[in-house]
Amino acid sequence: MSENLVISIDAMGGDNSPRVVIEGLAIAAQKNPDVKFLLFGDEGKVNEILKEFPQLQTVCEVRHATDVVSNDDKPSQVIRNRNTSMYMAIAAVKSGEAKAVVSAGNTGALMAISKLTLRTIQKIHRPAIVSMMPHRHGNYIMLDLGANTECDAINLAEFALMGNVVAKTALGIAKPRVALLNIGAEEMKGKEEIREAAQIIKNSRLDLDFIGYIEPHQIGEGVADVIVADGFTGNIALKTTEGTAKLFMRILKDLVKKSILAKIGVLFMLGVIFRVKKILDPRLYNGAMFVGLNGLSIKSHGGTDSVGYYVAVNNAIKMVRNDFVATIKSEIEKVDLEELSQEIIYDLY
Amino acid sequence: MSENLVISIDAMGGDNSPRVVIEGLAIAAQKNPDVKFLLFGDEGKVNEILKEFPQLQTVCEVRHATDVVSNDDKPSQVIRNRNTSMYMAIAAVKSGEAKAVVSAGNTGALMAISKLTLRTIQKIHRPAIVSMMPHRHGNYIMLDLGANTECDAINLAEFALMGNVVAKTALGIAKPRVALLNIGAEEMKGKEEIREAAQIIKNSRLDLDFIGYIEPHQIGEGVADVIVADGFTGNIALKTTEGTAKLFMRILKDLVKKSILAKIGVLFMLGVIFRVKKILDPRLYNGAMFVGLNGLSIKSHGGTDSVGYYVAVNNAIKMVRNDFVATIKSEIEKVDLEELSQEIIYDLY
Repeated sequence: MSENLVISIDAMGGDNSPRVVIEGLAIAAQKNPDVKFLLFGDEGKVNEILKEFPQLQTVCEVRHATDVVSNDDKPSQVIRNRNTSMYMAIAAVKSGEAKAVVSAGNTGALMAISKLTLRTIQKIHRPAIVSMMPHRHGNYIMLDLGANTECDAINLAEFALMGNVVAKTALGIAKPRVALLNIGAEEMKGKEEIREAAQIIKNSRLDLDFIGYIEPHQIGEGVADVIVADGFTGNIALKTTEGTAKLFMRILKDLVKKSILAKIGVLFMLGVIFRVKKILDPRLYNGAMFVGLNGLSIKSHGGTDSVGYYVAVNNAIKMVRNDFVATIKSEIEKVDLEELSQEIIYDLY
Repeated sequence: MSENLVISIDAMGGDNSPRVVIEGLAIAAQKNPDVKFLLFGDEGKVNEILKEFPQLQTVCEVRHATDVVSNDDKPSQVIRNRNTSMYMAIAAVKSGEAKAVVSAGNTGALMAISKLTLRTIQKIHRPAIVSMMPHRHGNYIMLDLGANTECDAINLAEFALMGNVVAKTALGIAKPRVALLNIGAEEMKGKEEIREAAQIIKNSRLDLDFIGYIEPHQIGEGVADVIVADGFTGNIALKTTEGTAKLFMRILKDLVKKSILAKIGVLFMLGVIFRVKKILDPRLYNGAMFVGLNGLSIKSHGGTDSVGYYVAVNNAIKMVRNDFVATIKSEIEKVDLEELSQEIIYDLY
């Protein structure tokens, strides 16, 4: 399988595995006939479903894994068991058999095994979780979404660098506009590490279109393609967005239920409602990427369906085709962020 | 004016002052005939508009201020000029002439002068900015919304204590459910200061209904009445909510514009749209309160109208009537959060 682009699959992760996984792969295989899949999981169960998809079967190789990582397993436990479908799927990237791994399993476990097995790229201090989200005129990417609760200025500058490559690769934007998430637009606002990161990015000779700070209420306007934050802040922003959209829909639904006129109105608006749902369809944004490792690890939502799983796999394929990991490596080679950071500290005090 | 409840007003703050201010006061005076207002600003301008509201005039006293704080003024400058309408309005709370001050002017300036003049309540380390917001079944309050970028565990515990009193006073909830904003529900998730704050609150003998951590996507469900965060996180959550609601409306509007059917549907849904707008009307949530000071300082949105300004003033009146500052003082007297914090550190290591 070595001439082809190979993606490693944890066939047992997620709520309805391996069925949803295999159905998602069937779509991915149809759209990417040159890609091969290496599936890890319960051989019997996987092969039984795979039989239903003869075309997919020709591009799949199934390897038996005796164990499965459950959602309750702690990262410290799972890193010791090399017989889980998740561990084996990640190890296939480490060994070079596959270029990326996709799993719909336990997020903490996937991060822990990915970090331990694939190791962080040299000169990158911390891997980050990246995801794509919609704004008014298209999509943007945000990182970190939760891998690193606390970050220093160098971490943030590295996220900016990696995010820039993700936006080029996954969104196809030639010159992504990169911004740091902050609570004010003025230079002296917000946290010290954010202000320092802004200085490091500006002083670096990175070929970045750095547009400065962005406040959360501006994100939807589509003024930036890459939003950089520490993992705590990114996770707060992500979940607040999710919660507000849900609250909005719920208030609307609660009110429509009580009004016959509104129910008639909804009939006329079905087209618009359909399109709004399509724009905001969480399946289209499935596949959070762990970046900064020697190999790509992608987390699919555990509760997604075959379309959502396909999107995650397709992201993996797109990133590999564009040589994502190598690009990050060559970008980080160009700069010495540590040195830049020391210069800034010298400047400030 | 000493027998009556007196509210001090910075008549010159905000975009359309003093007109919007006076129109807002006219509504407030009608609903609270026993309240008196002490207005600071350009005597000529203020009196000219005040003439239009003879009933309001009987409960107002106007004092001339030669200067006005502008939106570009830095806090470090404004604290030195005692002749601004803002400074004089705050000083009236300090002197005891008024129980609370309302201003629609420069937020940073209002916070700086309020802190300097009114001083933080003894045993409270940091004042916080609180505001009310809507969830599915009613309203909740969140703090801090931006006064303190970095907070330690004791600060967060104090915010919980103060937020509890605000929810009782402003929302009229007998036993508010208090939660710490975090990125996971498990005890060990999130930042150290949040975990430590949870321990302090649990161990304190405060009469708080502390429900643990809340994740941002749960806020809209109405599971908590008080959400506690550091000022950076709170501000991020607030502005993300604002931005997502706007994005949602914009996507809907953009799509409706392109469809004749949808435009017809909107006609049928006008009732629902009207009610959604009413639920989410930002004017109803106007009036961010600076709490933790010896006296209450309330910031109205600079761009609000008379109804919004009235809401801010009404909040001030409600808080004063319920003896908000004295209640916080007596609550903080009951506990020694510092001592509790030391016990916990001892426990953990």
